[in-house]
Amino acid sequence: SGLVLVKNPHLDLMEEDVLYHLDLGTKTHNLPEMFGDIKFVCVGGSPKRMRAFAQFMRRELGLAGPGEDVADICGGSDRYAMYRAGPVLSISHGMGIPSISIMLHELIKLLHHAKCRDVTIIRIGTSGGLGIEAGSVVITDTAVDSFFRPRFEQVVLGDVVVRSTELDKGLAEELLACSRDIPDFPTLIGHTMCTYDFYEGQGRLDGALCSFSSEKKLEYLRRAYDAGVRNIEMESTAFAALCGLCGLKGESCRFHLL
Amino acid sequence: SGLVLVKNPHLDLMEEDVLYHLDLGTKTHNLPEMFGDIKFVCVGGSPKRMRAFAQFMRRELGLAGPGEDVADICGGSDRYAMYRAGPVLSISHGMGIPSISIMLHELIKLLHHAKCRDVTIIRIGTSGGLGIEAGSVVITDTAVDSFFRPRFEQVVLGDVVVRSTELDKGLAEELLACSRDIPDFPTLIGHTMCTYDFYEGQGRLDGALCSFSSEKKLEYLRRAYDAGVRNIEMESTAFAALCGLCGLKGESCRFHLL
Repeated sequence: SGLVLVKNPHLDLMEEDVLYHLDLGTKTHNLPEMFGDIKFVCVGGSPKRMRAFAQFMRRELGLAGPGEDVADICGGSDRYAMYRAGPVLSISHGMGIPSISIMLHELIKLLHHAKCRDVTIIRIGTSGGLGIEAGSVVITDTAVDSFFRPRFEQVVLGDVVVRSTELDKGLAEELLACSRDIPDFPTLIGHTMCTYDFYEGQGRLDGALCSFSSEKKLEYLRRAYDAGVRNIEMESTAFAALCGLCGLKGESCRFHLL
Repeated sequence: SGLVLVKNPHLDLMEEDVLYHLDLGTKTHNLPEMFGDIKFVCVGGSPKRMRAFAQFMRRELGLAGPGEDVADICGGSDRYAMYRAGPVLSISHGMGIPSISIMLHELIKLLHHAKCRDVTIIRIGTSGGLGIEAGSVVITDTAVDSFFRPRFEQVVLGDVVVRSTELDKGLAEELLACSRDIPDFPTLIGHTMCTYDFYEGQGRLDGALCSFSSEKKLEYLRRAYDAGVRNIEMESTAFAALCGLCGLKGESCRFHLL
């Protein structure tokens, strides 16, 4: 049916669903009216960038009036920022798996309550590239953890539940095809490694703590490359797992700075 | 000596240290002049709340001119917000372990470069209480993970390193003593459970996914209570581990809403 799935039997029994961190709710807002026609959701870490992206999309879609600004739909919350450009939502998710998870739980419920159909979600933003040219875009086929395993471990009531982190292969190919029209930067499909930490977790030598040598770092990154990893970031496994479980066609597209 | 310790031999060899997510650096800013007299750092999730806290501290310390505003020291970055009130820094850290870890790595390096001495760091904010009165404040003695273990697991180049999550007991007692002068809300010392997820990870029934019954949820929370847990949040194990390793006298104080 193309509807977004929530897999929670308790939700139907609730009189009201407050999407607390988005500052939205089923009793305070008419979610089908506000969001029923959404077809694309683009998410990224930084609120300023997601605002700029919404402004860009409004111009691209011919929706921007002169001097017009975009309003933050989650203005009452300073956890996330959300902007709209026609059928496209642009939302910030902060940094790391816990932060994107909270946003995705509430976004998925939002799309469910709004009765949205056939929604595609794309994560955009920057990441650290691995053995690729600076300025490349990596489209993720599978997100892997720090041990290069294609899995996301979610603790549920003290038990570890393992979830798949495969992303939509058709969508990845579609995005790669689009990139062929843009000659400015190389685009490739590869695995994306997702870590819980930016410094020690990604082998950086410039954190407050670092117990390893430059050689050991390179050895680890080489092992990651050999396992198919082409970029490193901090949200993709949770993103892939949640989108996959809830019937959202999802993809992660990261621009490799430096 | 009371100095903040960085445990990274590479730092001394670097010509410049860019604290990227704070929009500060050793070449672009005079960190000793800007921060050398800092004695307290208060951190919390929300940028708006940390701004309000800095304004409150400025009034309490008699530093606020009429109509004066506080400036965001990290204004060039939208990842974190940082405000100053005399010897007190007030910084937001976003939600979750990865987000607070990035901030703490860069904050610890900042305090190190600024040659700060005898710095106390206190995490303030809200949390979910467990078997305690609404409006209580929980001062953490030890942070525990989702399995009630007093440990923080950090992946370093693919290996799991286990770190202690004990907080400063003397500081906890000192804060408890302070609370005796404020009769408005009960204050207690207990364990704080730190999870990687707000919905399934904390046994909530209202996420996009929920595979357990209300009874199973209560059983898990009862086990947590029996293990000494009095509140649940998403940053304390990483906070305790990093502060402990870097010689920062740290404590976590959470207000239990609802």
